[in-house]
Formats: sequence, structure tokens, C-alpha cells
Amino acid sequence: MSTIQTNTITTVSQNLCFEGTQGVYSHVSEQTGCTMRFGVFLPPQAKVGPVPVLYWLSGLTCTEENFITKAGAQRVAAELGVAIVTPDTSPRGLDIPGMADSYDFGLGAGFYVNATQAPWAQNFRMDAYVSQELPAVMAAHFPIDAQRTGIFGHSMGGHGALVLALRNPQRYRSVSAFAPIVSPLHCPWGEKALAGYLGPDRDTWKDYDACALIESRGWTGPALLVDQGANDTFLQTQLKPELLQQACSRAGVGLDLRMRAGYDHSYFFIASFVESHLRFHAQQLAL
Amino acid sequence: MSTIQTNTITTVSQNLCFEGTQGVYSHVSEQTGCTMRFGVFLPPQAKVGPVPVLYWLSGLTCTEENFITKAGAQRVAAELGVAIVTPDTSPRGLDIPGMADSYDFGLGAGFYVNATQAPWAQNFRMDAYVSQELPAVMAAHFPIDAQRTGIFGHSMGGHGALVLALRNPQRYRSVSAFAPIVSPLHCPWGEKALAGYLGPDRDTWKDYDACALIESRGWTGPALLVDQGANDTFLQTQLKPELLQQACSRAGVGLDLRMRAGYDHSYFFIASFVESHLRFHAQQLAL
Repeated sequence: MSTIQTNTITTVSQNLCFEGTQGVYSHVSEQTGCTMRFGVFLPPQAKVGPVPVLYWLSGLTCTEENFITKAGAQRVAAELGVAIVTPDTSPRGLDIPGMADSYDFGLGAGFYVNATQAPWAQNFRMDAYVSQELPAVMAAHFPIDAQRTGIFGHSMGGHGALVLALRNPQRYRSVSAFAPIVSPLHCPWGEKALAGYLGPDRDTWKDYDACALIESRGWTGPALLVDQGANDTFLQTQLKPELLQQACSRAGVGLDLRMRAGYDHSYFFIASFVESHLRFHAQQLAL
Repeated sequence: MSTIQTNTITTVSQNLCFEGTQGVYSHVSEQTGCTMRFGVFLPPQAKVGPVPVLYWLSGLTCTEENFITKAGAQRVAAELGVAIVTPDTSPRGLDIPGMADSYDFGLGAGFYVNATQAPWAQNFRMDAYVSQELPAVMAAHFPIDAQRTGIFGHSMGGHGALVLALRNPQRYRSVSAFAPIVSPLHCPWGEKALAGYLGPDRDTWKDYDACALIESRGWTGPALLVDQGANDTFLQTQLKPELLQQACSRAGVGLDLRMRAGYDHSYFFIASFVESHLRFHAQQLAL
């Protein structure tokens, strides 16, 4: 791996929140070839020393802002002394034909892969961006303890969290997800995205399919924590948590799957259960 | 007062949130002559009986949505068993010249007054809408105990909460505010709004000036609770909490003014302290 440039970040905004600081920053990313925004919540404990860090990966159509404003996570993060980093969901501001044609591909829909297909391969490198470049930027500019890193996300971002953790178990000590796409090989969102970014050879998709990765690589960290709304409109067509259950069962990987009666796919669902995810990660990262 | 029509409301959305229901509804308002949206969070306790109700009044440019998605209030409201109603901040969808020309007058800036000046007088009746029509709609359609009603708000909505409580002490048992406009007679936002809605005679403005009302009518309810960020950009030009202190002091009205070092005017500030406001109201409404 060549040296990652982390020289310059620009402060977009900073707001005091629960005695911590909710910031939004921008930088020019080598991986995506464009200016990327990301949020960082620094808890008050960061004033006296490095704190553990959680990466939150958002879902389709989101930016760095959705989780910051809607999840209500800062209260608990401030109590626990955990930083939360919220990347954007795709490159932006590029002139790639078709980039903004649909809500589930291109803009706002990077799917946390490194694309191999034209015209996406040069910029749609959200895997490398989130798992390599952004951690280097964080280490260079913020008082975080990179040895204590966890990752979580929602929907497409739940897929991203699971996949990046399974691909980089040395980097992520804990992983959890809300309503994740557990197997892009087996749902319309995933098939469209991976065909577009990775091409028609479905064998290559297995590197970005949580269920396939669980069976091929396993997971020796703490049991995967997943919350899923039972009234989620995408439950049966896109999310299919039963596939995750089956993969974990076959691979002997622990899974704490919590079906939540009456809850849907929205941030109202996330806000309702984010506290328990934060406490789960904080406990793991304290070890 | 003639009978208020409360026949029909339409459900725009409902999301389960902390085991309660966050709904958004619409109805045709007699007072504003247009379709109005409002949010209602019903805590789980509402399934077994009427619950106390809090009205939240938002600030300039807001709709019914901002508080619902950004304040993180549902968690505590669900714990305390309090409903929260979030009206919009002005009439919408009307064809009034000049209605959308500025962020601080007209659309999103009703200032919670009953306008007397053309072309606003027919529709910009947010005082009557919030303090009379909407409570009647709530009583007709939701399991709330109108005898236990409190009111709070932010900025222009903090002004609205204070003014409506002071004008209707029989209706509101408790009132609190975040960064309120305490005296529209003495700030540019207030002068512009009240001149436009009420005309040039500043004597008529005193009916909608919290400081003037405190001195003319007093307040025998619990001490007014106000949180104010010390780093609020609008502190010295628009908000001027010292005027509220002086008015309360002269009138012998209790005021719990909490200056919050480092906090600004945003929802990050509101989210940080909304729990204490909810607990304050719940305690008063339990009496």
C-alpha cells in the first residue's frame, strides 16, 4: 500500500452537541478522485485522550448528514466516550454518464465496493475509501485510537459494515447492522449494483456478499448484532435476514438477530435501537 | 367561539418509534384556509388511556418535520408517556403575493399571531390555529388529556410558546423555550414580522411580545424554563434573553434561564437539552 495522503481537511461545520463536537469535514480523496465529506462526532472524552471509533455506513440516497441529524446517537456516544465517523455513500461532483440516473446505482449508492468496470472503476472505490483512506485521515487529524475500531450501518450500509468487517477482521473488532442487505447476490438492489460495478461474473460478487464471506472466511469476533424491523417493506424482497441466519449457522458464526415487531426501514427504527448498538460496540472496544 | 370543524384528518405517515407512533397528519384548516400538516407522537401509554400533551412550535423556515426528525424527543416522551404535537410554522400552498419572498416573513414564518393587515389577515392566523383549532382537532382524534397541556418551542417558536402560554394561561400549564425571541418589539425579526402582520401601530404588537405580556398579565404557572446557547449567532441581535430577565424580575415572574456555554442555535443544541424540558413539563403536567 502506498502512502495515503492525509494532509488537508477542511472544516465544513462544527456544532457542540452533548458536550462533544459534531463536525462535518471535507477532503480531496485519492480513492474516489473527488472532494468527499464526512462527519465526525468527537465525545467530550476526546479532550483528554484518544477514544475508540465507530464507522457508520449509511444506506441508499443518504449523505454523511442523515445519521448525524436523525439517529440521536450523540447522546449515548458522549456518555460512552466513543467517536462516530459518518462517510458519504458515493463519490460526488463527477461527470460520469448515468451517475445520477437512479436512486439505487451511482450517486448515493456506492455499495462500499471497489468497482472494476468502466466507467466506474476509477472513482467508485468506496471500499478502499472507507476501509483505508478515511481511517488514515482520521488517525492523522483526530484523537482516536484506531486499535479500537468498530463498524455499523443501515441497509446498503449494513451490507457495507458486514462486508468490510468480514474482509478486514484485523481492522474492525465489532460489527452490527440495521436492516442490512445480507446477500447482494440474492436481491434486486445487489444484483443491479454488483453487475454494474463488478461486471457479469457473479463469482467476483462473492467478495462483497456478507453471506458468502461468512461461509468462506468465517468471523472470530463477537457475534454479529443485527436489528431488523418486521414491518420493513424491503424485508422479503431485498433484505432476507434468513439468508444471514443460514450462513452463520453453516459457518458456526454467532448472530444476534433481533426481529422488531412493527418497525419499518426508517430512521425512526434506527433511533429506537441505536443505543443498544452503541453499548454493544463500546463494550467490545473496551476489551 | 363558533364550533370548530374537526371532522376529517388524513394520515400522511406513521412510523413506530420507541414503541410509540410518530405520525404526520393533514387537515383543511378553517383558520388558515389551507391544508395544514402536523405531527403527533403518541407514546405507548396512549394505548391504555389519555396522555398529557405538549405542543412544540418550530422556528423560521421549519415545517412540522424538523423537530420530529432532529430533536430526538421521542425516546423521553415514550418513557414519560407524553404526546408531542408539532404544527407547521405558517399556512402553505396559498397564492399570496410576497408570501415566499423572504425566509423571515410569510412562508415558514407565521410568528404565531393573528394577522390584521392585508393580504395576510385572512390566512395568517397561526395564533388561533395553534391555540384553538389544533387542540380541538387533537381532542377529537387522539387519546390526549387536554387538561394537561404544555407548550414549548425554538426561536420564533420559543416566542410563540411564551406568547401563547401568557395569553392563554388557562390552556397551558407549563411553558419552556429554546433560544426564544423574547421581545419582537426589540429585534429586527420581530419588527419586520409584526409590522407586516399587525401594521405600524406598535401598541398592537404588545399582545404578541412575551416581555410586554409578562409585565401586563404576569404568569402564575411554574417558572418559565429557557435554555439559551451562549454561542448563538442571534443572541445579541435577535434573542436578547436579558430583556426576559428584566421583565420577569419587574413582574415577579419566576424564570429558570440556563445559558449554555459553547452551544449555538441549531438542533444539536435542542437535542442536547430537550430531555430536561420534557421532564420539566411531565412533572408539571402530572400535578
